[in-house]
Amino acid sequence: MDENRLKQQMDFIREIDKEKMITRQTYLSDGNRKENDAEHAWHMALMTILLSEYANEKIDVLKTVTMLLIHDIVEIDAGDTYAYDENGKKTQKERERKGAERIFGLLPTDQQKKMRGLWEEFEEGITPEAKFAHTMDNLQPMMLNAVSGGRAWREHQVSLSQLEKRNEHTAQGSEILWKYAWDNWISPNVEKGNLLK
Amino acid sequence: MDENRLKQQMDFIREIDKEKMITRQTYLSDGNRKENDAEHAWHMALMTILLSEYANEKIDVLKTVTMLLIHDIVEIDAGDTYAYDENGKKTQKERERKGAERIFGLLPTDQQKKMRGLWEEFEEGITPEAKFAHTMDNLQPMMLNAVSGGRAWREHQVSLSQLEKRNEHTAQGSEILWKYAWDNWISPNVEKGNLLK
Repeated sequence: MDENRLKQQMDFIREIDKEKMITRQTYLSDGNRKENDAEHAWHMALMTILLSEYANEKIDVLKTVTMLLIHDIVEIDAGDTYAYDENGKKTQKERERKGAERIFGLLPTDQQKKMRGLWEEFEEGITPEAKFAHTMDNLQPMMLNAVSGGRAWREHQVSLSQLEKRNEHTAQGSEILWKYAWDNWISPNVEKGNLLK
Repeated sequence: MDENRLKQQMDFIREIDKEKMITRQTYLSDGNRKENDAEHAWHMALMTILLSEYANEKIDVLKTVTMLLIHDIVEIDAGDTYAYDENGKKTQKERERKGAERIFGLLPTDQQKKMRGLWEEFEEGITPEAKFAHTMDNLQPMMLNAVSGGRAWREHQVSLSQLEKRNEHTAQGSEILWKYAWDNWISPNVEKGNLLK
């Protein structure tokens, strides 16, 4: 029994509680408040478990779920950068790299390497798991935006072309889910004027 | 491509957003507000991934994580029943059974059976995964209570004997984590008077 190892793990577990305090721009389905990073991660983890059958390439579900559960932890230090905040995105990479260094650094070396590796794999977006994780990361807020009447899109005056650019790789994780999103969430919100043409 | 299947899955995914609106009695680590079921589930899922090495019996990590991600979904209909609310606990089982019927019932039959089966397995608490999941379910709020100065315990005047009864099976998932909790969270809070003797 390595007491220092368990202490390091518990220090990390306590620290990541702060992810619940990082607010995103997406409204919950009832439109009453914006969601936070921990809620977003929980939702995507379950989506992955239920929707992995639609991945273009076979994915390791536990690996993808773990990737999604940890991928926003860097925002405890770096803050949430809204998908359509062009200024914020300029410094995002460096802020997040520093966050990864400090926060994953709390873990014992083996778990630090594993979790940081998963975060980097997500950022690179090349493996089947990373591609599917990005599909979830883009579709989960899109679903909530559609359900909550496009409120966040209207507030930020998001255009269809901005959304298309943001989603240029979404179909790489799942053609089927991208088509579903287009037909059910994007197209009707262009019709309603919630997404600017 | 079974369009009805995907529609059912998306209906479920939209419905479970409401889990983010179910407030628990535990305060976040900064003491500013109480956490909700989705945040609690996210935290435990990551705890399981990081702490599974301490399980008394070998566990299937993805199964345990899935169990924890879905185990409170019934509370969308049944509400959260506080661990020390003896009146609420009298009707809890029936309220939660009805919730499971409706909410898991939104899914396609195969996933409905799987998710409901995992929820029932958690409730029964017999398998290694269910035992470890209960250990997480008891230790995660205990950790937050300890970090937030025992506030929820004081507000509800929780006694050590109530906590011991609540945790009578916690060591069955992990002797090591139960000992850690006793030494680091319970014992110091008895000393400080946050848990009544």
